[in-house]
Amino acid sequence: MPSFNCVVDLCLYPVGTESVSGSDFVARVEKRIHESGLKSSLHSAGTTIEGPWDQVMSLVGKLHEHCHKENFKRIHSHIRVCSVIEDECSAYYR
Amino acid sequence: MPSFNCVVDLCLYPVGTESVSGSDFVARVEKRIHESGLKSSLHSAGTTIEGPWDQVMSLVGKLHEHCHKENFKRIHSHIRVCSVIEDECSAYYR
Amino acid sequence: MPSFNCVVDLCLYPVGTESVSGSDFVARVEKRIHESGLKSSLHSAGTTIEGPWDQVMSLVGKLHEHCHKENFKRIHSHIRVCSVIEDECSAYYR
Amino acid sequence: MPSFNCVVDLCLYPVGTESVSGSDFVARVEKRIHESGLKSSLHSAGTTIEGPWDQVMSLVGKLHEHCHKENFKRIHSHIRVCSVIEDECSAYYR
Repeated sequence: MPSFNCVVDLCLYPVGTESVSGSDFVARVEKRIHESGLKSSLHSAGTTIEGPWDQVMSLVGKLHEHCHKENFKRIHSHIRVCSVIEDECSAYYR
Repeated sequence: MPSFNCVVDLCLYPVGTESVSGSDFVARVEKRIHESGLKSSLHSAGTTIEGPWDQVMSLVGKLHEHCHKENFKRIHSHIRVCSVIEDECSAYYR
Repeated sequence: MPSFNCVVDLCLYPVGTESVSGSDFVARVEKRIHESGLKSSLHSAGTTIEGPWDQVMSLVGKLHEHCHKENFKRIHSHIRVCSVIEDECSAYYR
Repeated sequence: MPSFNCVVDLCLYPVGTESVSGSDFVARVEKRIHESGLKSSLHSAGTTIEGPWDQVMSLVGKLHEHCHKENFKRIHSHIRVCSVIEDECSAYYR
């Protein structure tokens, strides 16, 4: 698994739940992201996470798995990734 | 053109430019978004804009046009939209 | 509203419904897209629509509105847009 | 690294290159995706890839790395992921 540095913006949702409010769901996901120790920032449309590809994608995969364990049947996520040829990637929007 | 309220997260880039840094480009786009008067917030992976669909999408279209006028040949944008059945949409991530 | 030509890839789905299957929902949305007369193609992760910005975005807005009228409370969509400086945009992936 | 089954729609492109045409770039990326042996289909706005999370994300990471080795300085990708609680995920749009 590659381990280059990347900036990943993640927006993750359950589909097929009765609730249309995201606040509880987002709080749970954020807790897990925070516990990962990776650098992250929550914003109005997702969470930006920075770190090595393998660690970031392992985290995102675990978020999907964790949600399924909590009985969310279908999870969708939308991810914007950037990486640059030098080791340290900086976000395009900063 | 529909005018329901929506929350739109916009990430807009030029393709086919020599520069790999986004800071100048993002500054120009942000200036235009700010001038629109629509409620918006810049974050690490884009800009979240709130307002009526017709006004928000007119703004996004003008950003594409404006970039082409400034000689950016190809513009890509990635947009996350949410709307709710009640008139006022709130972002899922808030 | 700008009317430059663009290629828009749309992935639209309801949040807060009991069903986790998308087939019925997608069929309804596709019917509307087809009726619009705009050039489009359904694929495994969305629908690509081509045409003038104002017509395409009016259609996407009407899809949100239509879903709300059919009682879907929250609609999310994810949109990839490209436009080029010449009038006719061709998709990056073609 | 989690290994649940997922459907991933990938749209990957270089930023900061002189060319605005994607055909050569997409052909190279497609060749790599094909060689991975994972189930995939190219469409008008990206490529849909199906398989275990670890294999799919290892492939996507290698595509970023490969592009950097070929001297593309900045690579952006946009990814739509879905997974379901049962082992086999089917795309929402199928």
